[in-house]
Formats: sequence, structure tokens, C-alpha cells
Amino acid sequence: MRHHPARLIAKKRDGLALSREEIEDLIAGVVDGSLGDAQLGALLMAVCCNGMTAEETVALTLAMRDSGVVLRHEQVARPKIDKHSTGGVGDKVSLLLAPLVAAAGVAVPMVSGRGLGHTGGTIDKLQSLPGYRTDLSLARFGEVLERCGYAMLQPNERLAPADRRMYATRDISGTVESIPLITSSILSKKLAEGIDGLVMDVKCGRAAFLQEEHDAVQLMDALVATGGALGIPVHALVTDMDHPLGLAIGNALEVREVLRALDGDCPDDLREVTLALATEMLLLASAARDAAAARATLQRLWQDGIVRDVFRQNLELQGGDPGVLDDHELLGRAPYVLAVEAGRSGFVVDVDPLQLGQIVVDLGGGRRQPDDRIDPLVGIELCRVLGDEVRAGDVLAMVHAGTEREAHDAAARIAGAMPIGGERRQRGAWIKRRSGA
Amino acid sequence: MRHHPARLIAKKRDGLALSREEIEDLIAGVVDGSLGDAQLGALLMAVCCNGMTAEETVALTLAMRDSGVVLRHEQVARPKIDKHSTGGVGDKVSLLLAPLVAAAGVAVPMVSGRGLGHTGGTIDKLQSLPGYRTDLSLARFGEVLERCGYAMLQPNERLAPADRRMYATRDISGTVESIPLITSSILSKKLAEGIDGLVMDVKCGRAAFLQEEHDAVQLMDALVATGGALGIPVHALVTDMDHPLGLAIGNALEVREVLRALDGDCPDDLREVTLALATEMLLLASAARDAAAARATLQRLWQDGIVRDVFRQNLELQGGDPGVLDDHELLGRAPYVLAVEAGRSGFVVDVDPLQLGQIVVDLGGGRRQPDDRIDPLVGIELCRVLGDEVRAGDVLAMVHAGTEREAHDAAARIAGAMPIGGERRQRGAWIKRRSGA
Repeated sequence: MRHHPARLIAKKRDGLALSREEIEDLIAGVVDGSLGDAQLGALLMAVCCNGMTAEETVALTLAMRDSGVVLRHEQVARPKIDKHSTGGVGDKVSLLLAPLVAAAGVAVPMVSGRGLGHTGGTIDKLQSLPGYRTDLSLARFGEVLERCGYAMLQPNERLAPADRRMYATRDISGTVESIPLITSSILSKKLAEGIDGLVMDVKCGRAAFLQEEHDAVQLMDALVATGGALGIPVHALVTDMDHPLGLAIGNALEVREVLRALDGDCPDDLREVTLALATEMLLLASAARDAAAARATLQRLWQDGIVRDVFRQNLELQGGDPGVLDDHELLGRAPYVLAVEAGRSGFVVDVDPLQLGQIVVDLGGGRRQPDDRIDPLVGIELCRVLGDEVRAGDVLAMVHAGTEREAHDAAARIAGAMPIGGERRQRGAWIKRRSGA
Repeated sequence: MRHHPARLIAKKRDGLALSREEIEDLIAGVVDGSLGDAQLGALLMAVCCNGMTAEETVALTLAMRDSGVVLRHEQVARPKIDKHSTGGVGDKVSLLLAPLVAAAGVAVPMVSGRGLGHTGGTIDKLQSLPGYRTDLSLARFGEVLERCGYAMLQPNERLAPADRRMYATRDISGTVESIPLITSSILSKKLAEGIDGLVMDVKCGRAAFLQEEHDAVQLMDALVATGGALGIPVHALVTDMDHPLGLAIGNALEVREVLRALDGDCPDDLREVTLALATEMLLLASAARDAAAARATLQRLWQDGIVRDVFRQNLELQGGDPGVLDDHELLGRAPYVLAVEAGRSGFVVDVDPLQLGQIVVDLGGGRRQPDDRIDPLVGIELCRVLGDEVRAGDVLAMVHAGTEREAHDAAARIAGAMPIGGERRQRGAWIKRRSGA
């Protein structure tokens, strides 16, 4: 580093804005290690406490993006648009949306993460597909993208390596919750993918990283402004995470839900959120006249089985067994499957995604620590949703577990997460806000 | 740690107060390493940004004190009072004050630090005394204290070890400037010495850690309140560090000034600040009826050579050569000594302690990094002070250097730090504030 790290950190501590050159110097220190752990922790906390200006956030995002390779995919003529979600419970949208948007002629170069805590990760879900590889070389990533219109890659150390260290540090040091840090973390990685535009799904609710709509809108605005300043248009939706998305929670169970959705059998909320995000991607790519036209195109491609064909092509290119499309049982089954029954008659008055997500973690389907191994087969299938009328003894959900004991423990907890009451409650809007609206 | 560190750090990030038990847990993590560097950096920054309540500061100080051994000196019947300074340029008060107060019947168990940057350290000064050892065992420290009334110890890893790691981390991570962190750092170490009371010299001015009187008063108040809450009364003075204290800057040169002072030849500012601090120590020890009586006692002991005798006793007990008291030349001389002359006639309108301190560092007499070796013989002797009338060619100062080149370079810079002007300026008060006043 050219500057003395403590001096730059103290500047941020005192609430002053860092120059672009100072931010570049700090990120150089993150990458080459000359900024020590204690210094990085202090810097991140100073940003948490004092924020960053729009200009600082742009400079930080750019410096983080340029800390590694920035892909270009020059061989791919189509517009390249990606989607990113801030994470939730039951969020399997990417698996469905990537082939959907690719089928509509837009290239989707998608780098996704693993799950941590109650929040699932797209890469874990994909890896429950027999044979599917997400550890592609960057060259192969581009090839798969070119050949089938989308490609799925796990985090790669050559893309935005500064974020890797910063994210790991934030995770342990109480410095995750900061709009400029979240913005730069997301955008630096996404911009390194070589995209022309990005659609953001900012989850909001109990099981989301951001519980309050106010905070979600702040992040949405920061993402749109920062992307725009860097020449990459960003559309963003704030979507509900007060309830799980779809009916399956757990990696293989969620893939099973996606496979059924490709065949046309899709829960309403999953279908609506997927179509809404895909519509934004087509608009960003100028691949549709307007939202209505985009939606019509997407629905037709989905109904006609074109999306399923693109999914199959990708499956073959990334080493997966395409037979799974016709025989979902190839995904496997957890050894113990137990029904969770309603203890009384009435209405399902809550479906708590945070509790359900935590139960899946405790079943072994998620990680407490980044290095934990997971069991892809365990999880929960919801048979009832918020507002449904039930009678005592009706099946509320099915739990999939590794042991009988775990199945019973989880079943009791699932019943607690899906209380029955006397009054029918309705779920709020799935899509709460749209950027620019 | 019993709590998850990130959760506690996030609590402080959000401006909430940590409980005593949470603070104890964090400090346990500092000592056993289960709180990582990034976490410690983030925690310290969160405290810098959001502060701490008085209760938190007390709990932090206590947890840090109790991270190691707390001495008791039960064999020493006298009241045990120490003095601590926040550091400045030319501050050799401790060397004079310890035997002075000991001569008056108060025990002074003093653990001091090394210098860093332009700020000198008592331990470095003591180590320029031929043979003098500051690396005493804690048992020997107590013995010396018992036998001559004072003892001087370098930082010991068994006393407040939490502070050791926290201080090193603060130094590199831009988290030094925080009243609760400074307060707990100072008091935890001092309380571990086994004292009944503490006098604080809070330096204020250009070459002090705190430049603004407002900040110095804040620290003074926090020290007094925190010490009081822990049952150790603290008296504090805010003293001037807009100018060097005394005439010598540099380790052996400052010791030489102390030896002359023991013989009765002492610059006014050094005498006044030393007497004022010593008076507070006698009052804390109830060793004098009032300030006037304390001062009279101290002056008598000084004039009568009793203080010099106590200094000699300590010198013998800590391995030093007592011959130095009669032959100051045993301290040695730097190979190149050069006069700095006034370039014009007029008045000395400034004596910049920050520049002078930095020049001594550059001569090799101070440290840029904690592990730097220093040359005890180099430094500056001022021959003129602020407000003195001079004629062109008069000697302003003598520079003591290791090479001729360094002597010339330093001489030019010293002349710049002691500008001559047309108007006589007067130095402000040496003692700016007194706690409780």
C-alpha cells in the first residue's frame, strides 16, 4: 500500500470520504495482504458506522471488480444479463429463470454462491443434480454460455478476489449489514461476470437478510445507482421473504420442484416471482417490446417445453444426467420421510420461513459454518400454505430426514412453525416494489 | 467465548451498551485468541464510532486489569501512588518525580512504556543510565519498591495482557483515538500495579496525543470517573504540550537534565510540572495536610539532596552505576555535536515540539516502528526558549548526532522549528486544568 493503512482507516472513522485512489490502495492491500485482518475489520466497521458516499461506493465496487479477471464473453453475441437474489428460504428461482431467459434469446452467465445459515444457495441445489458440475474453468463457463444460453458457476477465486476476503471478514466481524458494503460485494462479483445488465431480487422479510422494507428499498436504490454509474443498468424488485418461496425447502427437494415446474406444475408464488424477474431481464436486454410482451413470450416458451429443452442442454453441457428430467427419483430420497399433521382444525395462520430454514439446517441440509458438509436429500415439503383451511390430522408438510429421531424432532418443530388458528389470513404481495416505479 | 463474537460486535456497532458479562467474554477472547484479529479490529472501531457508557468503560477496565496478575505489594506499608502521562516531547518528569515522592514517604510502583513516534518513553530514558535494568521480575519489582520507595519496570506480559494485544491492534488500525479505549488501556495497566491512587498528567497541545483542551478534559473526566468507580481515586492535571518540557530532548540528554535537576539546576517548567504532579500524589496518599504543605515538603526534600539520595538507592537496586550522579559524562556523548545558530536578531516566537520530536526520531533517538532500535545519545539541547531575545549568531540549540551529515541536516530543521520574529511572545500556562477544580 502506498498510504499508511491506519491513516486511511482513521479518515473513514472520522466520517470523511475516501478518494478513489485511496480506495484503490485499500483494495490493493486487501488482495496482497498488506492490509492486515485487524485493519480490514476496523475499516469495514468504520464503513458500517459512517457509511459511504455514492462516489465512494462506485469506486469501491470498481476496485473490487478489478481485483481479478473481468470476463467479456466476446464470442457471445446475445445481450448478457444476470439475476441475483439477496437470499431466502425456498428460493430456487435461478434454476428455473436461467433456462427461461436463455430460451428467450438472452445469455445468462451466472456465478452463484453456496448456502449459509437458513439461506439456501443455488450451487448447493445444482449439486444435488446427479453428475452436475459447477466447478467449471472460466473458459468452459464461456463455452457453456455460448452453446446453451446460460451457464452456472460456483464462486471462482479469479473473479473479484477482494470480495472473497472482505466477505469472509464481514461474516465473522459483525460488519455484514452495510448498504455500501453489500452493494459493492454483489456488484463487483456480478460485473466481473461480463454482463450488460443485472436484475436484482432484493428479498425482504423475516427470513431475508433485510427485514424492513425501508432497508430493502435503500439497497435497491444503491444497487441501481451504483450499477448505473458504472454503465451497467440494474433493475431491481423487492420481493417477499416473510414466507418461503414455493413449497420445497432443502436442496434436492427444491430441484424436484424445479423439475416439476419445467413440466408445468409450479406453485403460484414461484411462477410469479420467476416471471417478474425474467421479464425485467428481457426488458434490460431489449429482447421484448414491453413487459406484457416479455411475459407472453416467457409463458409460451415455458408451456411449449422450450425451457425444459434448454435446461436439458445445460444439464448435458455441465455433466449432469439428463435422465433426471424424466425420472425425478434419480435425485434420491432421504431414508426417513414423515408426515407433519395438523393438531387441530382451522386455518394455517403462519408459515415461518426462518424457523423452517433453521430446521433444514438442523436436519443437515444447510451450513452453520462455511466448511460444513451438507446432506442434499433432507428438507421439508409444504403441503399447505398460509390461509389454507385444515382439519385435525390433515398433512401440513412432509419432513425428509437422515434418521428417524431427526424426522420426529423436525416434525414437532415444523408443526410449531405452521400454527393453526381460527381466522383466515392472506399472504401479502409477492412483489413489493420495483425500481424506477 | 460463550457468546458469538459477531453478535456482540454488532451490538456495539448498533450503538447498544454491552453488559459486564459480555465485555468479560470479549476480553477473555482477546486473551485466549478466540476473538480473531478482524473481530478485534471491528470491535475497537465500533467503540471508536459509538463510544461506551461509563458503566461499560468501568467493566472494560476491570476485565482488562483482571486479564493478568494484579499486584498487591502487601509487604509495603506506605500508600502506593503512581503517576502516568499521556506522553509528550521532553517529558522526563517520571525520573524526577518518583524519587521525589518516594522521599516524602509515598511508595511509587511505576510501570512505564517505551517511546513511539515523536513521543519519548520513560523506559528508554532509564536505559540510557549505564547498567540500569528495567526488566525486573514482578517479585524483584516489589522488593525494590519496598527498599527504596520506588521501582521502575518495563511493560510486563503478566500485567494486563489484554491491553498488550488491544494496544498493538489499535496502533495499526486507526482506533487509538477513543476516550473509553484510552481510559481502559491506561487504568487497566496502572490498576494492575497494585496502587491506592493515581495521578494523571493529560498532555494537551500540538505534540500531545490530544491536541484540543476539550478532548483532554474529556479524558481527564473519564479517568477520574472510571478510577473512582473502581475504588482507586484519580487526580488529573491537563498540562501544556504546545512546547517541549524542559530543555533536553533525547534519552541520555534528558537523563542528564534530570541529574542536573537533582543537583538543583532545573528548568522552571520541568520543576513546576513535577512539583504539581507530586503534590497531587502526596494529597492522594494523605501524606500532606494540603497542597501548600505538600509543596513545601517536596521542595525541602529536593533542596536538601534527599531526593538525590533516593535516586541513588534506586539506581543501585536496579543495577545502575551510581557514579553517574557525580560524573554525568558517564552517560556518554554522541560523536557529533553542532550548534544551531540564530539567523537573525529578534525573539524566539515558537519552539515546535512536534517538529523537534520528529527530528530526534530521524536522528535515531526514537522509533518509527515498535521494534526499531534507538541511539540513546542523540537529541537536542535547547539553549533558548519561547520569548527569549536573541541576536543573529546566538546559539539556539545544540544538536547531538551520530554522523556529521545528520547533525547538519538536523540543525537546519531545528532552526526552522525555532523561528525568530519581531514580537515577544509568552508561553501559556504550564498547567491548564486540574480535576475537581
